[in-house]
Amino acid sequence: MSRDGVKKPGRFLTVEGGEGVGKSTQIVALADAIRKAGFDVVITREPGGTPGAEAIRQLLLGGSAERWLPRTEALLFAAARSDHVERLIKPALENGKWVISDRFLDSSRAYQGGGSGLSDNDILALHKIGSQGLLPDRTLVLRLDTNEAMKRASSRDAGHADRIQSRDSGFHTDVDNAFVGFAEKESRIRLVDASGPEEVVTSRLLSEISDLLELS
Amino acid sequence: MSRDGVKKPGRFLTVEGGEGVGKSTQIVALADAIRKAGFDVVITREPGGTPGAEAIRQLLLGGSAERWLPRTEALLFAAARSDHVERLIKPALENGKWVISDRFLDSSRAYQGGGSGLSDNDILALHKIGSQGLLPDRTLVLRLDTNEAMKRASSRDAGHADRIQSRDSGFHTDVDNAFVGFAEKESRIRLVDASGPEEVVTSRLLSEISDLLELS
Repeated sequence: MSRDGVKKPGRFLTVEGGEGVGKSTQIVALADAIRKAGFDVVITREPGGTPGAEAIRQLLLGGSAERWLPRTEALLFAAARSDHVERLIKPALENGKWVISDRFLDSSRAYQGGGSGLSDNDILALHKIGSQGLLPDRTLVLRLDTNEAMKRASSRDAGHADRIQSRDSGFHTDVDNAFVGFAEKESRIRLVDASGPEEVVTSRLLSEISDLLELS
Repeated sequence: MSRDGVKKPGRFLTVEGGEGVGKSTQIVALADAIRKAGFDVVITREPGGTPGAEAIRQLLLGGSAERWLPRTEALLFAAARSDHVERLIKPALENGKWVISDRFLDSSRAYQGGGSGLSDNDILALHKIGSQGLLPDRTLVLRLDTNEAMKRASSRDAGHADRIQSRDSGFHTDVDNAFVGFAEKESRIRLVDASGPEEVVTSRLLSEISDLLELS
């Protein structure tokens, strides 16, 4: 609620980046800082975030790497996102809350839109139909040297990598390159160095959203 | 296999129409007649037809009528269809088999594309991305007076109507009108009177595919 009593819509932030870059830790730190600035914050994740989307998540992450063809996988991610957007993200934003999502559309663009017969435009078309094209106010891409990220991810996930995580390092480099390409063209997308102490990374993230905190 | 030893692609037929019009019975009769003409026939259904698509079917048909929003539902149907097309329908056609599917794309167009914020073009766009736009060689729409169809369906399904079947008769009239509209514009789509003895209905269906049987 602003000083003149008119409720303002909240802000929508997404945090992206490969496995092992510290997304979960940084999202909690970011939410704490935004709450201290006086806002309600909802933390969510993709795929998932609502009962329907979590049910689709079970389909997506279970089974062998070949369980879903790229086209089917892209549609399932878009379906989960549609439920998530319409039933959690939009209502929260309309109630003036800030929403931070661990992954969102740009993960689909980076992971599914870069090959396998699907284009970035295909992924964006699915998002337009499924979620009326809702874009984040800001997207923070955490980046680490690929070797360091793989090391962190594999020590954390030893023995239970899921379908998506079990891809090789060449794939992860392609994904990182895709994020770099998006950031060059879209000003909402910011690349953030994820190396160094956690507090330093958090301060880098906050400096990328300082304009949103001041304007709210 | 044709006389010159070159394997010809099979034909893809879909059978559409509301609940209670006799689709299942007629599909079996149609398959028998096509087999007698010397072709291999695969009968399948939507949503479903492959293990992946059947898993998505469980999500689609379970739960309350409000479980899925129209946009999410359309994406889930397109995801199931994508798996079905790439893993069952296309390989069968490439092996020279005829495929008959109980429902396909035109059901999505008639059920999801007529309102709720989704257009026919949206459904066709999802099909292009998910299934590379594969269209049936012929689509047979079985039609009965709505009251008679509802009576047949409710006597058969007493006590276990699913999410889709539990909609009202006004909805079913809208669906029928949608099929009539498609048939006016697309010559692959044929409206077939489903009233009268089963054998008579089968002969009507066969007359609508006689050109395909001769050309194969």
